[in-house]
Amino acid sequence: MSAIERLIRPRSIAVIGASADPSKTSGRPVSYLQKHGFAGAIYPVNPKVAEIGGLACYPDIASLPDVPDVGLVLLGAERAHVAVRELSARGAAAAIVLASGFTETGAEGAARQQQLMQAAGSMRLLGPNTIGLVNLTDDIVLSASGALAMDHFPAGPVGLVSQSGGILGAILSRAAARGVGLSKLVSTSNEADLELADFIDFLADDDATKVIALYIEAIRNPARFREAVLKARGAGKPIVAFKIGRSEAGAKAAISHTGALAGSDRMYDALFRQLGVIRAKTFEDLLDIPAALSTGRKLSGRRVAILTSTGGAGTIVSDSLGVAGFATPAPDADTAAQLRALQSGAHAMLDRNPIDVTLAGLQPDLLRAAIRILLASPSYDALVVIAGSSAVGSPALMADAIHDCLPLSGKPVIAYVSPHAPDAVSVLTQRGVPAYTSAESCAAALDGLLQAGMFEQVPTSGSAGTAVDITDLPAGSLDEAQAKTLFARFGIPIAAEQVVATAEEAEWAARDFGGKVVLKILSGEIAHKSDVGGVAVNLTAEAIGGRLTAMADEVEARTGKRPERFLVQEMISGGVEIILGMHRDALGVAILLGMGGVAAELFKDTTMRLLPPEGGLDLAEARAMARDLVTWPLLDGFRGRLKCDVEALAAAIVAFSQMVAHLGDRLLEAEINPVFVLPAGQGVKAVDGLAVLGASK
Amino acid sequence: MSAIERLIRPRSIAVIGASADPSKTSGRPVSYLQKHGFAGAIYPVNPKVAEIGGLACYPDIASLPDVPDVGLVLLGAERAHVAVRELSARGAAAAIVLASGFTETGAEGAARQQQLMQAAGSMRLLGPNTIGLVNLTDDIVLSASGALAMDHFPAGPVGLVSQSGGILGAILSRAAARGVGLSKLVSTSNEADLELADFIDFLADDDATKVIALYIEAIRNPARFREAVLKARGAGKPIVAFKIGRSEAGAKAAISHTGALAGSDRMYDALFRQLGVIRAKTFEDLLDIPAALSTGRKLSGRRVAILTSTGGAGTIVSDSLGVAGFATPAPDADTAAQLRALQSGAHAMLDRNPIDVTLAGLQPDLLRAAIRILLASPSYDALVVIAGSSAVGSPALMADAIHDCLPLSGKPVIAYVSPHAPDAVSVLTQRGVPAYTSAESCAAALDGLLQAGMFEQVPTSGSAGTAVDITDLPAGSLDEAQAKTLFARFGIPIAAEQVVATAEEAEWAARDFGGKVVLKILSGEIAHKSDVGGVAVNLTAEAIGGRLTAMADEVEARTGKRPERFLVQEMISGGVEIILGMHRDALGVAILLGMGGVAAELFKDTTMRLLPPEGGLDLAEARAMARDLVTWPLLDGFRGRLKCDVEALAAAIVAFSQMVAHLGDRLLEAEINPVFVLPAGQGVKAVDGLAVLGASK
Repeated sequence: MSAIERLIRPRSIAVIGASADPSKTSGRPVSYLQKHGFAGAIYPVNPKVAEIGGLACYPDIASLPDVPDVGLVLLGAERAHVAVRELSARGAAAAIVLASGFTETGAEGAARQQQLMQAAGSMRLLGPNTIGLVNLTDDIVLSASGALAMDHFPAGPVGLVSQSGGILGAILSRAAARGVGLSKLVSTSNEADLELADFIDFLADDDATKVIALYIEAIRNPARFREAVLKARGAGKPIVAFKIGRSEAGAKAAISHTGALAGSDRMYDALFRQLGVIRAKTFEDLLDIPAALSTGRKLSGRRVAILTSTGGAGTIVSDSLGVAGFATPAPDADTAAQLRALQSGAHAMLDRNPIDVTLAGLQPDLLRAAIRILLASPSYDALVVIAGSSAVGSPALMADAIHDCLPLSGKPVIAYVSPHAPDAVSVLTQRGVPAYTSAESCAAALDGLLQAGMFEQVPTSGSAGTAVDITDLPAGSLDEAQAKTLFARFGIPIAAEQVVATAEEAEWAARDFGGKVVLKILSGEIAHKSDVGGVAVNLTAEAIGGRLTAMADEVEARTGKRPERFLVQEMISGGVEIILGMHRDALGVAILLGMGGVAAELFKDTTMRLLPPEGGLDLAEARAMARDLVTWPLLDGFRGRLKCDVEALAAAIVAFSQMVAHLGDRLLEAEINPVFVLPAGQGVKAVDGLAVLGASK
Repeated sequence: MSAIERLIRPRSIAVIGASADPSKTSGRPVSYLQKHGFAGAIYPVNPKVAEIGGLACYPDIASLPDVPDVGLVLLGAERAHVAVRELSARGAAAAIVLASGFTETGAEGAARQQQLMQAAGSMRLLGPNTIGLVNLTDDIVLSASGALAMDHFPAGPVGLVSQSGGILGAILSRAAARGVGLSKLVSTSNEADLELADFIDFLADDDATKVIALYIEAIRNPARFREAVLKARGAGKPIVAFKIGRSEAGAKAAISHTGALAGSDRMYDALFRQLGVIRAKTFEDLLDIPAALSTGRKLSGRRVAILTSTGGAGTIVSDSLGVAGFATPAPDADTAAQLRALQSGAHAMLDRNPIDVTLAGLQPDLLRAAIRILLASPSYDALVVIAGSSAVGSPALMADAIHDCLPLSGKPVIAYVSPHAPDAVSVLTQRGVPAYTSAESCAAALDGLLQAGMFEQVPTSGSAGTAVDITDLPAGSLDEAQAKTLFARFGIPIAAEQVVATAEEAEWAARDFGGKVVLKILSGEIAHKSDVGGVAVNLTAEAIGGRLTAMADEVEARTGKRPERFLVQEMISGGVEIILGMHRDALGVAILLGMGGVAAELFKDTTMRLLPPEGGLDLAEARAMARDLVTWPLLDGFRGRLKCDVEALAAAIVAFSQMVAHLGDRLLEAEINPVFVLPAGQGVKAVDGLAVLGASK
């Protein structure tokens, strides 16, 4: 058994600093272990007490009769390292340190955490600042969470890894109340040693776990996270993550909570999407979606039948599903005819959707018949059954009726419980019909099922590209011509241009190009050329000389420095302007694609992808980026326009991403703004851009 | 007493069709009346039974010993009208008809509803297809809702009017479980007679009601709704509405549920905003927001302190508040110093936000002291207290600590309960601290409080404008020149233009204007002129004649009809293009403002306002419309651009709205697309537009 296996399925547990008073936090773990039926050996350690809960209590770790698999350390931050050292010396597989007062509190705490890690040596450590772990599969609770005061927790297929201890307790108690079965819950908190990825990796192999739920404040090790996630996905286990930091306020709170600096939220969004992790939009979704996934049923489309015993609630669910992009179509003729045949009362209107059986009352046979018809109907991909006040008086009646029909089809069936009826929620969920009390939760659950299906494909692989020599380029801010030289070497088409110093050179260059040209100052220092009068468009060869002199005068007047070099560039028109850039933060490096133009800028119409381990993005991912844009129709022939050369854009995105990957840390900044995407077949042209290189190593 | 007062506070109630079996739906009302302590007279009517629940049962309405205030009719759709006729004949104030099978089921049902209304005569009618009403203020339950099987419902200040019966039961049971006190709940359903507005009007006068919650599927009478809402607002009662139909699926479901055709959801959005009705975004919000409003506390800003006993939950709440636009700033120096002084443990970090007292455990004195400091702090407008697993073991301890501090400040205080702990939710709410189990609910509650504060202002009034003679304009689709003549008469500036028929006339016109001009075909039939080659821009007087001939040839080739009239128009450039239009549906007539350009179109950047009873919009509302646009910065000098003439745009919006108001039903369609908004001081110019007039009356 690995150390993590021994941590999660220990045969023996030492509880260091256990109190004989179960009302104290330090009295809880032994009492919880006994209460929830731990079958192995429990060794309380406390020099002041002889017996705890009928168990012999040991004065110290040295005197334990056996090497414990796990030491649960309840001592304070100052003394925890002593117990950890002794546990390590005795050969324990792992220690769990509950005390807080480490990195999350500042420099002094960080030093304490360092000391703790040294004390652990080769022994694995969970925490500190953790609430521990709960293994419901094997009735092992290694935790002080007050939530464990509840008597019973249904075991089931959902595993949870949480970077917060309090969240473990919240999920544990909320899941129990709703009848959602859990397998293992681990709170990693400060992650001095064992982290998110370790437990995702463990759960990927754990037979009892079919779905993995993650509460994330910051991924400290994106590469290991990626590996573990892909392993779990390879094992067919969907992963649902709730990530804090959607707002600045939340990101700040998370930093002060765990001391970890997270990347930007949009980077997480990109990472999750690229790895096929289903993102829970709200904390509720972190239980709502796994509850649906744990049935193992697959959703293959967006058409939902709603069977209701209360009209208003059917309408609410229908409305929320519509907002979430689901359709609630009326039944096809054959299905409608079968439903009509069920109508016993004169006023029942069963041949529509929502299918309203209010008037028929709660007749289990009618319910069964309607469910059978709807599950067999080619019109629907899923079924939502709604329980009104009349149905919740005897929830088992409804639950059994649905349960009986489940084997007939693999389509997902979920329930919405309209009145306050916690028993109905729990009974339905336990009978294989995940039940929800909000319409938004129903929509989130179905959306999660849909994503799980889409994510069954292997993620697209990256592209390597070829090495390019850039030793001739200087460190620091490149000027526009140098930046575009850099881009061109990696295969990005750039507008034809020539560097000039004098009015005469400019005129010759303009004659060379033929037609109208653009004149710009060339400088590595001035970022916004047009703000200082350093850009002129639509110039003829005749006019360009005079314009160059006038431009030099104006820029000198505005900046105090006379520009010495200029760029003459072919005029590009008739395309769509795109921005191509990069973003680097704690989570990695991403490629950013955005629509140009002020309106798109105000709407922040951008999308991003993290670089994969292979290097650059591949073409499929690049095409998907373009289609992500809300203004994608502008590239796709909107309102009779010409279609743009999206293939050339995709190739440019790939080339840009390969450049970013190849240059690695040496590339501090890079942006092409704009790239003109010309009509199909005419390619793309980078018209302006910037790049900042660090010193070569 | 008015008939509605007698309906809601009856002294005597006849229950027609009552069953002696309380497990039957028709057995519930008498049993519920008794169970919930109705103090007046109950007259069961059923010819087959002598006694129900210890009460004498009457064979028919004629034999009742007294005229009942209300008759609760439990008979089926076919027989209900008979009872209604007899109740009316005896002089009852109102009848409540529970049966379904009326307008909601189609033409046959509509005829039955008509018959029911005739039978009612001058007696008021609630329903049919209603679940009845519940008056918790006076312990009177006139309903068959299964939710009433619960034993106790806290009375309180929230009144509910619902267009769905099932929703009444859902709110009733959900509120009771959470400790939210209700006053009156009415299900209006089919609204054959009494409707939404009648009960809003009643609740506006009802002393026990401080907040009004509405579940709306369709407002059948917008004018009466408006009146009633403004009356309630005048009485200082905030109104929260959940309106079905955010998606097409929901709108369709609502139609089949109540048979009423609603206006578009965006029209409702506009109506609610204009009347100061707080819109509940989810069904949960319909209880969450009133729960917060019912404390009577006012929120005057967006800065929220979070006091937590569990770190993860504090982070979740902080994140959700941030997403909803609230700030969770760190405390000012003075507040921080006071919080630091409370720190007893070495690791407690109280001088930040969220203020985390996890480490201090649940110490009521510490909690009280921290709450006092935060309520007194000038850094915060509201406080969210978070209960973790440690706090919910004895919820009263926390509830009392908060409750004690409430008199110190008028700032809102709400609670988030992290683990499953229904008792804690109920105890906190009942002690004046509305408690929530989702972070989104906390954000929705605070947002509702903020809106209630903003909506305390009287809504802007409309503008009348002056009558304009249009008798010379023909019915039907006006051509572009006629449409702009119409707009100009109402005071909307239009681009200079001249109608021409020949190449020579075009040339003269172009010379008159000077500079470059635009040439367009003039037709009331061809809507998309440019699609058939009917628009040319940037023409000189020299070129226009030839271009006109070529244009006539091309349009003839494409449409089979040679254009006979053309428009020569000054070229407008340098402004921002705006669309000004109207929208008419079941809810009324609205003015629509949208940003021009394809990107804004793809983002659907539009806003709308319903016409007020006074006629047109006023200038303040018109300015607010412009600021509603996401691309408003384009008008406001974004990125160093010139500021546009927003005052002239506002005046044009007002003029357009007055035109729409004056022409009333005669104006079938009108749109100006585009209006150029020129730089400040240069006004606006309508460049193209359409109008369709009905026949004059």
